[in-house]
Amino acid sequence: MSRFWSPLVHSLTPYVPGEQPKLADLIKLNTNESPYGPSPRALEAMRATADESMRLYPDPECLALRTALGKRVGLPPEYVFVGNGSDEVLAHAFQALFAHGDPLLFADVTYSFYKVYCGLYSLPYRLVPLTDDMRIRVQDYTGPCSGVVLANPNAPTGVALGLDKIKALLAMHPDRVVLVDEAYVDFGAESAVTLVKDYPNLLVVQTFSKSRALAGARVGFAFGQPDLIEALVRVKDSFNSYPLDRIAQAGATASVEDEAWFEQSVQKVIASRTSLTSGLQGLGFDVLPSQANFVYAYPADRDAVQLAAALRERAIIVRHLRGPRTSSWLRITVGTDQQCAMLLSALRDILHRNT
Amino acid sequence: MSRFWSPLVHSLTPYVPGEQPKLADLIKLNTNESPYGPSPRALEAMRATADESMRLYPDPECLALRTALGKRVGLPPEYVFVGNGSDEVLAHAFQALFAHGDPLLFADVTYSFYKVYCGLYSLPYRLVPLTDDMRIRVQDYTGPCSGVVLANPNAPTGVALGLDKIKALLAMHPDRVVLVDEAYVDFGAESAVTLVKDYPNLLVVQTFSKSRALAGARVGFAFGQPDLIEALVRVKDSFNSYPLDRIAQAGATASVEDEAWFEQSVQKVIASRTSLTSGLQGLGFDVLPSQANFVYAYPADRDAVQLAAALRERAIIVRHLRGPRTSSWLRITVGTDQQCAMLLSALRDILHRNT
Repeated sequence: MSRFWSPLVHSLTPYVPGEQPKLADLIKLNTNESPYGPSPRALEAMRATADESMRLYPDPECLALRTALGKRVGLPPEYVFVGNGSDEVLAHAFQALFAHGDPLLFADVTYSFYKVYCGLYSLPYRLVPLTDDMRIRVQDYTGPCSGVVLANPNAPTGVALGLDKIKALLAMHPDRVVLVDEAYVDFGAESAVTLVKDYPNLLVVQTFSKSRALAGARVGFAFGQPDLIEALVRVKDSFNSYPLDRIAQAGATASVEDEAWFEQSVQKVIASRTSLTSGLQGLGFDVLPSQANFVYAYPADRDAVQLAAALRERAIIVRHLRGPRTSSWLRITVGTDQQCAMLLSALRDILHRNT
Repeated sequence: MSRFWSPLVHSLTPYVPGEQPKLADLIKLNTNESPYGPSPRALEAMRATADESMRLYPDPECLALRTALGKRVGLPPEYVFVGNGSDEVLAHAFQALFAHGDPLLFADVTYSFYKVYCGLYSLPYRLVPLTDDMRIRVQDYTGPCSGVVLANPNAPTGVALGLDKIKALLAMHPDRVVLVDEAYVDFGAESAVTLVKDYPNLLVVQTFSKSRALAGARVGFAFGQPDLIEALVRVKDSFNSYPLDRIAQAGATASVEDEAWFEQSVQKVIASRTSLTSGLQGLGFDVLPSQANFVYAYPADRDAVQLAAALRERAIIVRHLRGPRTSSWLRITVGTDQQCAMLLSALRDILHRNT
């Protein structure tokens, strides 16, 4: 508290990201990073960019990157926005597209940053409860609203909706933007990017932090029709002309162009997810069907907080989210097969001791 | 215009950055980049960071960088904030510290992004005219206000204020934040960072883009007492947890630690500025006394727009800013001695042809 703070600052409840521990030897299954490195071509492009040219500002329009992203999905660059991580893209979208007086709609259990953006931009919102089995039911997103935000697959559950449901939602609110946050879409869900040309109210947000293993580079992006992209650009250019540095732009562009690496890396995660899910089920966990690079697991009669703490003592960190509907669950990032095996072995040991 | 836009978006007048031409052979004296590259140690640190670790999120608190920045000026990291370029730092500061109902005060001729931030955060402001000789007079910054923003040295004039004037301003508004934007301070002006411990209402903002030749890396920072820094952190953590990527953090930290390179590079710019100023004066220009890495030059009876266009035909770009008080001036970045000589030679040629 301080007399210098704008009144808003007192009321903010900032987002708390998953721990980024400084210890190197932890098995880090808490923030959904890829267990594999980025495309070697991306790394090479980044190293090549770290030269004398760093004295110059980057391209404020990120045209090469936007062109590469659009080309991959058959859209021209006017349909593509890029930002400093999908968090920045989301922040701009909340400010640019959702201030219409009515509440914004999103799930009660979803990415917890959505509430925080509403706080930052003084946007009213209404939480739409997941069903008892932790699913999004699009029919529940009715009534006057300023827009709808949907994580697909949802986080922390990992459960994905099909495009038929997304289309239904888009048709329910033709005058409001439906933002589909596809941070995890590449791990098996269907992207709504194929609907962008047909639905003027659709904004699809994705990231390089998960399937492209560039969390350390901070690059996110959005697909939408040009007037939605223009709204984001207007806000971005009123905030920070150059949010993406030269190296991030070069690395991300090279990453998009390395389809083979991308495909192989995603397939490995999907395979490991299957065996991790079976392993957890074998230990008595309920595991939601995940299309993401994490699983959401309910350890039946075990206390999730204690389990997370016991794992941490064994140098394995997973994510526990407080809240009435999440406090009994653990969100576990899909690591390498070896990391998953070590997690299962540690869990076996912990559960065994306590019986 | 679009039915999907938040009402605010319609009213925004985004900032227009100086051109970043894609042609390589231009002499680029329009956006105040350093003519010299960054510290070789910074480049080495950046290349070394572009490895498999890029799959991991960066340190959201940027502790190593904040510690290095603080150490250099004798402040602990709690007094240091970092962001994605000083533009992001400024944006957060405007939102976090200046919404108190009264107008924010800044000069009529100064960094034109300040007005844009006011638009983005719906902050009223009052422009305080520079004197006829383009100087800031701190006594003019009176009356109820939500804060004061001062570029020192001012841009585009390059003229600096002494710390006695900054102290006077801080004493005039003890309950309001005085933000001193020191983007160009390293080229000969006095930094107000030495006042931070004594003035709870002082926020000093600096950047790696100019004196440290890392415009391509997007790193800015602020010094202030912990409650001001906390306000910035609260807004930042409600916007984007990780605005600085791993490579930018590593490069900036190494840059701070390379004092010898920094000092040498700044001294070269200062020396070139002296000879550029003399050269321009020799051609009949009025040149304001600059403590920045650019000079602000008034070409007497010549038309500034035509001069800029004629220079561009000769592959030299300088900055012309529209507006009643700036349209007769050119802002020229101090390049290498060779670039400055080529500029002067081109100007001589242009002026000669037209007589």
